[in-house]
Amino acid sequence: MTNGKLILLRHGQSQWNKSNQFTGWVDVDLTEQGIAEAIRGGEMLKEAGILPEVVYTSLLRRAIRTANIALNAADRHWIPVVRDWRLNERHYGALQGLNKAETKDKYGDEQFMAWRRSYDTPPPELADDSEYSQSDDVRYSHLDTVPRTECLLDVVKRFIPYYQEEIEPRVKRGETVLVAAHGNSLRALVKHLDNISDEDIAALNIPTGIPLVYELDAEGTVINPGGTYLDPEAAAAGAAAVAAQGGK
Amino acid sequence: MTNGKLILLRHGQSQWNKSNQFTGWVDVDLTEQGIAEAIRGGEMLKEAGILPEVVYTSLLRRAIRTANIALNAADRHWIPVVRDWRLNERHYGALQGLNKAETKDKYGDEQFMAWRRSYDTPPPELADDSEYSQSDDVRYSHLDTVPRTECLLDVVKRFIPYYQEEIEPRVKRGETVLVAAHGNSLRALVKHLDNISDEDIAALNIPTGIPLVYELDAEGTVINPGGTYLDPEAAAAGAAAVAAQGGK
Repeated sequence: MTNGKLILLRHGQSQWNKSNQFTGWVDVDLTEQGIAEAIRGGEMLKEAGILPEVVYTSLLRRAIRTANIALNAADRHWIPVVRDWRLNERHYGALQGLNKAETKDKYGDEQFMAWRRSYDTPPPELADDSEYSQSDDVRYSHLDTVPRTECLLDVVKRFIPYYQEEIEPRVKRGETVLVAAHGNSLRALVKHLDNISDEDIAALNIPTGIPLVYELDAEGTVINPGGTYLDPEAAAAGAAAVAAQGGK
Repeated sequence: MTNGKLILLRHGQSQWNKSNQFTGWVDVDLTEQGIAEAIRGGEMLKEAGILPEVVYTSLLRRAIRTANIALNAADRHWIPVVRDWRLNERHYGALQGLNKAETKDKYGDEQFMAWRRSYDTPPPELADDSEYSQSDDVRYSHLDTVPRTECLLDVVKRFIPYYQEEIEPRVKRGETVLVAAHGNSLRALVKHLDNISDEDIAALNIPTGIPLVYELDAEGTVINPGGTYLDPEAAAAGAAAVAAQGGK
């Protein structure tokens, strides 16, 4: 049997990436650059002949549009689609909507990095009456509790069981599965796939718009630890750009 | 219980609508006008407060993109998606790729209208080695036989049982369901919903880009026979334009 493939695609530039604001569950759109990144990501899949048979997305517009646009560019627009909130970006709590550079200036480098990269300490909770709250958003009305903030550990707890139940079985069966999602939901997944420690995951940055392909055998063992970027040079430059965020 | 709603949305202008060619199962894209129609269709849904909870599309790009774009405009991009070949446009047989005006000139008005509007006589079969054949298209590889031509009756036979099994039960339960599809798959559905005779269906033209809403009760009875267009004036003009196709 051919090994299954798991393709991770992080959405490209969003309006709030551009304006340097913390986004989390706020449903901002892609910019023109983000759209171009999605097209290029789809073209890379097509050029590599790595053709998704099913796509999983979050419930957020920037990942959904990235999936739609990339699959259209790869001539795979017609494959089945599954959307689930458990692929959502990390909820950024009271930081949602704030400017990253201003937040860094106000609270200092150490607190800023702790909020961005601490594994198990979430930012302060977002108030339900904030304009950036999702407490009344109909798409989450089936949840017992809509998150008010999350750390990466919270994302691991919601996403990895879903991955193991819904996505991994398909890859083990030899399917090619596209996961179009976000910086932190994909970090949670890579942590699981590569068995990265709670400490080391802080240093991992996933570039936007460049498909990262893991090959798994029928037992779910990763054949290529660390995965394979379809454009390694662009991936390295992109990861460095993500790491530098918070600058002005 | 609130009555369920079934929203029919025919895709807007495609590249081959613009160049006046028979399309069928050939997977052409939308034009800029077609994209604008999809956006406007989504805005109409949002303005009317008719918010789909699930969307069904064909496997063809022009319907898939129409659904994606309209739902994005309606802020319902995150709802579940189901795609199925049984919502595809009628396969146009050997006419696929031909210019409509040239075909009308060559074969005469009577034959031309018979091919376009005969209920039970399909056009000649498309050869498997035609550049416009879908015989080798992976998205249909699960079918016992990939169609080589279809009349409207063939579309009724493939689509209505699927509608009754997969879509109608949701509407009966009170859900709001969007069906983003094609001129002839939607004509098949309207024939069923409004119990239109095999003869009278020939005169029915569905305009592009304007949501047509049917309300169904828990028994599946249509509350508003003929359905309700969200923009009746534009719908009337649009239907007349479709009826006039084949001119130069």
